[in-house]
Amino acid sequence: MNNSNRPLDVVILAAGQGTRMRSALPKVLHPVGGRPMVAWAVKAAQELGARSVVVVTGHGAPQVEAALAGTGVTFARQARQQGTGDAFLSGAEALPHTGDADILVLYGDTPLLRPGTLREMLADHQARGSAFTILTGELPDATGYGRIIRDDAGNVTRIVEQKGATDAEKAVREFNSGVYVMDARAPELARQIVPNSVTGEYYLTDLLALYHAAGAAAHAFKLTDIDEVMGANDRTGLAEAEAILRRRINTGHMRAGVTFINPDTNSIEDTVTLGRDVMVEPGVILRGNTQVADGVTLGAYSVITDSVLETGVAIKAHSVLEGAVVGAGSDVGPFARLRPGSVLGTGVHIGNFVETKNARLSDGVKAGHLAYLGDVTVGAETNIGAGTIIANFDGVNKHQTSVGAGVFIGSNSTLIAPRTVGDAAFIAAGSAIHDDIPEGALAIARGKQRTMEGWSRRYWGGMREKVGQKLPWLAEWLERQ
Amino acid sequence: MNNSNRPLDVVILAAGQGTRMRSALPKVLHPVGGRPMVAWAVKAAQELGARSVVVVTGHGAPQVEAALAGTGVTFARQARQQGTGDAFLSGAEALPHTGDADILVLYGDTPLLRPGTLREMLADHQARGSAFTILTGELPDATGYGRIIRDDAGNVTRIVEQKGATDAEKAVREFNSGVYVMDARAPELARQIVPNSVTGEYYLTDLLALYHAAGAAAHAFKLTDIDEVMGANDRTGLAEAEAILRRRINTGHMRAGVTFINPDTNSIEDTVTLGRDVMVEPGVILRGNTQVADGVTLGAYSVITDSVLETGVAIKAHSVLEGAVVGAGSDVGPFARLRPGSVLGTGVHIGNFVETKNARLSDGVKAGHLAYLGDVTVGAETNIGAGTIIANFDGVNKHQTSVGAGVFIGSNSTLIAPRTVGDAAFIAAGSAIHDDIPEGALAIARGKQRTMEGWSRRYWGGMREKVGQKLPWLAEWLERQ
Amino acid sequence: MNNSNRPLDVVILAAGQGTRMRSALPKVLHPVGGRPMVAWAVKAAQELGARSVVVVTGHGAPQVEAALAGTGVTFARQARQQGTGDAFLSGAEALPHTGDADILVLYGDTPLLRPGTLREMLADHQARGSAFTILTGELPDATGYGRIIRDDAGNVTRIVEQKGATDAEKAVREFNSGVYVMDARAPELARQIVPNSVTGEYYLTDLLALYHAAGAAAHAFKLTDIDEVMGANDRTGLAEAEAILRRRINTGHMRAGVTFINPDTNSIEDTVTLGRDVMVEPGVILRGNTQVADGVTLGAYSVITDSVLETGVAIKAHSVLEGAVVGAGSDVGPFARLRPGSVLGTGVHIGNFVETKNARLSDGVKAGHLAYLGDVTVGAETNIGAGTIIANFDGVNKHQTSVGAGVFIGSNSTLIAPRTVGDAAFIAAGSAIHDDIPEGALAIARGKQRTMEGWSRRYWGGMREKVGQKLPWLAEWLERQ
Repeated sequence: MNNSNRPLDVVILAAGQGTRMRSALPKVLHPVGGRPMVAWAVKAAQELGARSVVVVTGHGAPQVEAALAGTGVTFARQARQQGTGDAFLSGAEALPHTGDADILVLYGDTPLLRPGTLREMLADHQARGSAFTILTGELPDATGYGRIIRDDAGNVTRIVEQKGATDAEKAVREFNSGVYVMDARAPELARQIVPNSVTGEYYLTDLLALYHAAGAAAHAFKLTDIDEVMGANDRTGLAEAEAILRRRINTGHMRAGVTFINPDTNSIEDTVTLGRDVMVEPGVILRGNTQVADGVTLGAYSVITDSVLETGVAIKAHSVLEGAVVGAGSDVGPFARLRPGSVLGTGVHIGNFVETKNARLSDGVKAGHLAYLGDVTVGAETNIGAGTIIANFDGVNKHQTSVGAGVFIGSNSTLIAPRTVGDAAFIAAGSAIHDDIPEGALAIARGKQRTMEGWSRRYWGGMREKVGQKLPWLAEWLERQ
Repeated sequence: MNNSNRPLDVVILAAGQGTRMRSALPKVLHPVGGRPMVAWAVKAAQELGARSVVVVTGHGAPQVEAALAGTGVTFARQARQQGTGDAFLSGAEALPHTGDADILVLYGDTPLLRPGTLREMLADHQARGSAFTILTGELPDATGYGRIIRDDAGNVTRIVEQKGATDAEKAVREFNSGVYVMDARAPELARQIVPNSVTGEYYLTDLLALYHAAGAAAHAFKLTDIDEVMGANDRTGLAEAEAILRRRINTGHMRAGVTFINPDTNSIEDTVTLGRDVMVEPGVILRGNTQVADGVTLGAYSVITDSVLETGVAIKAHSVLEGAVVGAGSDVGPFARLRPGSVLGTGVHIGNFVETKNARLSDGVKAGHLAYLGDVTVGAETNIGAGTIIANFDGVNKHQTSVGAGVFIGSNSTLIAPRTVGDAAFIAAGSAIHDDIPEGALAIARGKQRTMEGWSRRYWGGMREKVGQKLPWLAEWLERQ
Repeated sequence: MNNSNRPLDVVILAAGQGTRMRSALPKVLHPVGGRPMVAWAVKAAQELGARSVVVVTGHGAPQVEAALAGTGVTFARQARQQGTGDAFLSGAEALPHTGDADILVLYGDTPLLRPGTLREMLADHQARGSAFTILTGELPDATGYGRIIRDDAGNVTRIVEQKGATDAEKAVREFNSGVYVMDARAPELARQIVPNSVTGEYYLTDLLALYHAAGAAAHAFKLTDIDEVMGANDRTGLAEAEAILRRRINTGHMRAGVTFINPDTNSIEDTVTLGRDVMVEPGVILRGNTQVADGVTLGAYSVITDSVLETGVAIKAHSVLEGAVVGAGSDVGPFARLRPGSVLGTGVHIGNFVETKNARLSDGVKAGHLAYLGDVTVGAETNIGAGTIIANFDGVNKHQTSVGAGVFIGSNSTLIAPRTVGDAAFIAAGSAIHDDIPEGALAIARGKQRTMEGWSRRYWGGMREKVGQKLPWLAEWLERQ
């Protein structure tokens, strides 16, 4: 929340092309940490309690606007790309209210800027009674950046671009991040910006002189961590931003009581929550609204999206979960795949090469090996044999199957949906179940075994040469017959 | 082994709480390199040939003692947490012998300290005829650490804490690690430590002055690699220690003739042995008593625990092995899972989505695809078809199956245990085998195929609308009928 | 191409033992980036348009020559290991033409040297009309390296080894990489090299003095990136070279429009091509002649070799592809394995735990779960149920199966090859198909279901005690019967 007395409006500049991305996607839609870059700015604005958020779009405007649909922001299209001053004005003019709010200018390509930093900047802005506050940082060598020139009182007098800087100004290490908070005069003053005589563009930095001309002082709020204003201009920049965010998120979890073996290999989106004493093994990836309770183990290379893991769950290596709920004390994997609608009770066991989808498995259900469980409910303590398939699809429709509690499904069985299997029923291994089974009944649906002695001698004898080449033991056996 | 003439006793201080771990687990039980931190100190003490090892426990004492049960150490509980001097005395008083040994003080949270370094420190201690030797290190800036003050002869005169240090002392870069070796007087002198007037705690560093008062000289043994005394106080510290250990172990293997593609992604516990010309692909994790012979390839993202891989084995990507033995020249994976009791002969082939458990597979057995082989012995050169399941479980008991040599098991077969299949038997694909099969016999246990012409036209015709939406080819086909 | 007017011959020195590799493999055959180190030198020579390439072999000569067989290079065995001068002469004497070409000397253990750098060096050599050009680099401290001594005109006068250097010479930071380009006099001059009085070896650096004595000037061409001449002498060096190459390759892809989430975890061989807006998730490994079109997503931990992925393909996590072609818009995985000969049309869906091998799947085919499709062609829009196995192997031979378009294969079916299934046929779940199926027919080949009520009570009642211990729900059910 913005604790200032004045309302806060936010203008997000997101019209740039980003040629160096070499992409069909507008620059600001490239993701960092699982979220388009511009969405980080929107999120920051909303966490600050902004009254209105206007996103200024230009290159790829329809794509950007579609990506942010439903977030509550307003869009302003920058008709001509005439510089940051023009972009800001496009945005400011689209603000529904005017004249009463501070205006914060953010960018669509600086995903690392923390809301907390902005909150401090806004508090400083208000505490100083500032008209115009610039977010700045300090570099050992700020070559290429606009330098912040201060007077003896520490107020900002000018921003000098590289080109026009004297040697003394070039030695200045404080640079302009381009993030500003301004008082309500900003739109009116921005209209007075004149185009640069060389480039013909309107520069938002010219606001500083206009504020000064209006008798107002400008201040700088200096960042502790300049990574926060790092802009990603190409894919290497994206990867760097991703790495910084990864370290930030993973360090946060470690300080809160999560163990990582090799955190540089783990990608965890900021929407994920992790309980105390969670173990994150190498290569685990966690996405979306995933919630992990205390004491859960996340096995190496597992990829988990939008899932809920209750206390003490063990996810074993190489498991892929999406939209699943796993009850306390259950174990899953390795090589398990839980798809959306998988809801597991407590103490459920899902083993290797098992897929579940839209499957409600009650407490203590076991499906250890090579099974497909789709569109099914299963009662407590039912044992699902290796190779069991719920045949839920008839070619165009999916059908539902209900399996009771305490059922034993023999290996390599097929349940042809829709099917109902009563409690404590028993399905013989290798059965293709095409009728419902009442409670406590045995169902058997397989061929009876016939055994033909001496058959192998004839079979292998018929291809004796190849057997001799490939299967020495069998060739010797044939000799002995 | 400790080569000194005097016996060596070791006191390990492991009573601290470790609040910053934010954990239900005591600090010293947090693992680094697959072993609780305190177990590294115990291991070091034992590798030095310590006569007695006492672990001083406090916070979480029952858990710590349970974790170290069976290691041969003695425990001393520190009743009140009254500082390192008190902790040491608790431990020293629990030593079964006294008066004749050097005493080494170690810590439960410094897992990186090498036994070799301690051995050198002990040798130096003895060579100098030292009474009290301090393990020290040097930092560019030792702010916050106790500084080592030496006299002109190089003997240590004082350890000055940050708070009481003069500017000259603050400039000293040599710091006290807290690891000491002392002569047999230490317990007696430790009893003379008086509580600190400010904190009321007993500090073990006060021993230095007491040794001086007793007319003995103290020396320092300076570490080459100060990482060795890095203590892990929170989970970021754990991750750093893990990273240092990972590099140390992986570099050791590289120098001995193992190839790594991307060693920063490989976690290999120090209990694992690797032969010459082993190839470790990215992401491979090796744990426990795993022994890998010469020329083995370990495929990317495989996780291998307590397994033996003989010469020239190829483990392909994404395989998970635990408690398995893989004979020379066998290949396993990708996506294979070998569970405990899997013993593979030479030249065995295990392919994708195959699980083995308590399975003895003789030379040349092939199980290439989608199979579960549990509680079974298989003879040489037997071919196990895709989708084969050994149905070893009757709901409460596991049963054993024996398959002979040169057997051909057709695809999608089920063997209902307990079952015996003779040499050179042949099982027709899709059979559910519920009787034993004699040597050389064919067994077939499936339904006979019936074919009903024209059926599809009626079936799909009955849902023509959905077919039209979803299956254009089939809709056109229907039109043509 | 070498744009010089003179032809270019290349001598690659690759005779060294590489004891520190601790390997049965000769040093120059150790791979970096998926290619033996010496093959990088051969590739560079060929990219420069070299007329002749001679590789000088020594230790492990037969292995090195076998590894390079078919590349068009000539081999010269260095009979005695008598230094670089001797090695060069062995190579130069094996050149088929003499007297008219520049000669470039490369090494079998510097895989990071870029052809582009060599091209610039050759251009510089020619532009200066140089007789002898040395590739050099600059280090903050060049201790241990041969230093480049220049005269006032910048010409190279001497190369001084560490041992014989004065203090002034030791301060020189420019070092000799050992890569040279020389005019056609080099072989003749090399014959005049005399053995070193201490070691008895012939040093190629002595050529410099011989060129001077012949009245020719020598020049240096200084590298921008000294990593290029990094030699790998042990496995840690190999891993460092691999890391540098990995960053170089991945950065190149990023600049060209490929997104990486965590590029340090991705190994991509330089033979792989990636289109625009490809997404490379963590841990993906790409090898060989893999071609990835625009907009493809490569899911985490997938390993892809020699495969073609057309526009918009989605490879999901943990998939392993080798020698596969995947048509536009298809999705594969997670946990899919496509083996050589898998050719997928457009919009094909391959799901989890599915293996294909020598399988041509037409547009819109779906195989979502737990299937083995080997030696098969499948028509458009056919649906392959979970657990389907094509039983292609009779024990010694593989057989071919043909499945038509619009076929529905029910779950857990087995098709016993060779088999032909007509268009729009329907196979009932659980069938073992041993006869061909005509177009539009239903085939069913499974046992009929029998249901025996009350059976479970007797079955579980017979092991009531164990049921009581393990299956509380079932024990209670038994009580109620």
